[in-house]
Amino acid sequence: MSAQKLLIGVIGAGQATEQGRQWAYEIGRLIAWREAFLVCGGLGGVMEEACRGCIEAGGETVGILPGDDAAQANPWVSLPIVTNMGHARNVIIAHSARALVAVEGEYGTLSEIAVALKLGRPVTALGGWRDIPGVMPAVTPRGAISWLFDRLRTQDS
Amino acid sequence: MSAQKLLIGVIGAGQATEQGRQWAYEIGRLIAWREAFLVCGGLGGVMEEACRGCIEAGGETVGILPGDDAAQANPWVSLPIVTNMGHARNVIIAHSARALVAVEGEYGTLSEIAVALKLGRPVTALGGWRDIPGVMPAVTPRGAISWLFDRLRTQDS
Amino acid sequence: MSAQKLLIGVIGAGQATEQGRQWAYEIGRLIAWREAFLVCGGLGGVMEEACRGCIEAGGETVGILPGDDAAQANPWVSLPIVTNMGHARNVIIAHSARALVAVEGEYGTLSEIAVALKLGRPVTALGGWRDIPGVMPAVTPRGAISWLFDRLRTQDS
Amino acid sequence: MSAQKLLIGVIGAGQATEQGRQWAYEIGRLIAWREAFLVCGGLGGVMEEACRGCIEAGGETVGILPGDDAAQANPWVSLPIVTNMGHARNVIIAHSARALVAVEGEYGTLSEIAVALKLGRPVTALGGWRDIPGVMPAVTPRGAISWLFDRLRTQDS
Repeated sequence: MSAQKLLIGVIGAGQATEQGRQWAYEIGRLIAWREAFLVCGGLGGVMEEACRGCIEAGGETVGILPGDDAAQANPWVSLPIVTNMGHARNVIIAHSARALVAVEGEYGTLSEIAVALKLGRPVTALGGWRDIPGVMPAVTPRGAISWLFDRLRTQDS
Repeated sequence: MSAQKLLIGVIGAGQATEQGRQWAYEIGRLIAWREAFLVCGGLGGVMEEACRGCIEAGGETVGILPGDDAAQANPWVSLPIVTNMGHARNVIIAHSARALVAVEGEYGTLSEIAVALKLGRPVTALGGWRDIPGVMPAVTPRGAISWLFDRLRTQDS
Repeated sequence: MSAQKLLIGVIGAGQATEQGRQWAYEIGRLIAWREAFLVCGGLGGVMEEACRGCIEAGGETVGILPGDDAAQANPWVSLPIVTNMGHARNVIIAHSARALVAVEGEYGTLSEIAVALKLGRPVTALGGWRDIPGVMPAVTPRGAISWLFDRLRTQDS
Repeated sequence: MSAQKLLIGVIGAGQATEQGRQWAYEIGRLIAWREAFLVCGGLGGVMEEACRGCIEAGGETVGILPGDDAAQANPWVSLPIVTNMGHARNVIIAHSARALVAVEGEYGTLSEIAVALKLGRPVTALGGWRDIPGVMPAVTPRGAISWLFDRLRTQDS
């Protein structure tokens, strides 16, 4: 009878292509519709679009921020967690999310994917690092989210 | 027009007196009534009672956990943030909370109070470390929360 | 037959009185003479004087830095550990030091003392937070270091 | 006129092949001969063999440990830094090392490589993740270390 929310991670760079931004926005909406909370790094680009999608669909968003000020969060972060730990905050995202979607992204995203895989979290990717062994490549946001929730259901049963 | 919630920290030991547990429960309720979110270390004792009070009054609770598993959270944590960083997670609580209430507590609580004061956060205490310079001693949960919100209002204006 | 060095922590503020700087310098020398390594936060004030004393007496100094650049270290740090974790680096100092000397200091020092006591480390203080329960007050650097090494000998036997 | 030592990172898994162990041992020796300090995660496998090579060649080794006890370090770590931060300690290694050699390794190593590349550190790899864009593949320990020191010389000038 726990109050605990399910947290789904969205990871990706602060700079995204138009395609990446659309994917991220849609991922955010789908997380809200599934009644999970979105957890991300709280900054711009992929993170911001995912948060916007989630909030606009009625969800809640947790931003695990690298700096020392909640004002650093994008405007769609409802719960800013201020770590002041730079890239080490990626590890907290990987630990806190039950499963993760990567959208495009660079080395920061790769480090997050690697820690998440090390922890045994399901990870799917749209663009970017989809060829890393252990990552499930996805073609659409809907496919990515369906796969993640299927995997979580299987793990639980 | 930010979606950002106000986070109020509650700190204290995993072992609490009956008095401490009552104070913590009441603090949790008052935070919910003020429509803030409660952030704490997510474990037992003071943290658990504060979370229970907050959830039972319709609020939400963020638990910044020291270990590597969300299952470590007390049952009244709605948002478990899994740091796997032991005592270093206290620093994240101090950074994330806009203001903090300490209820009783030992050395872990003292380290959290010290970081919070270093960061310029308003800190009030019921029992425990109320004699540390910079901490506002409180006698009742209601007095503690009133003082905190007054201080935040003053800072903002 | 371990290669492991003994690490002694020196904690204190980046701003110190002339008295505090002399104490710190002497503490650094005494640590080198005992053939231990000094570990500290790597910045100025008490940290710098302690490192200078240690290096000038032929010792080695580890600086656990809060920022993201080794250039932040004072010139007497021989081993800069770059955490980019702000105040959370205090927790690493407390974990890494087998025993600690506090010289004056403010809230940052208090947070470090509290974590060290929580971890069961012997802590002695010259000035500053010497009245915190569990801290052994010292009057001279020599007295502080003698007490620390006596405590470590007792723990080991 | 700084006392600061140059730190070279060696990263790789706690489980290594015989080939990987030989590479790691040789890397450790070469770091000592270059009068740099070796920094690593302080545990077994690649980390242990690299530390052994370094110590046996007269060098010093820094182990950034994931757990809360210096006793966790392999016997060839001369300076155990106790983080109690699990995988987040990888980020500290990447920040502290001026350049890094990866020897084989799994997801933990990949996360470390990714953070190091993000920080602009030169990274070379023997086996394992040598195909990640930005990593310089190496065939021998000598080739790896030569490349690293050439890169550091170029950066400085």
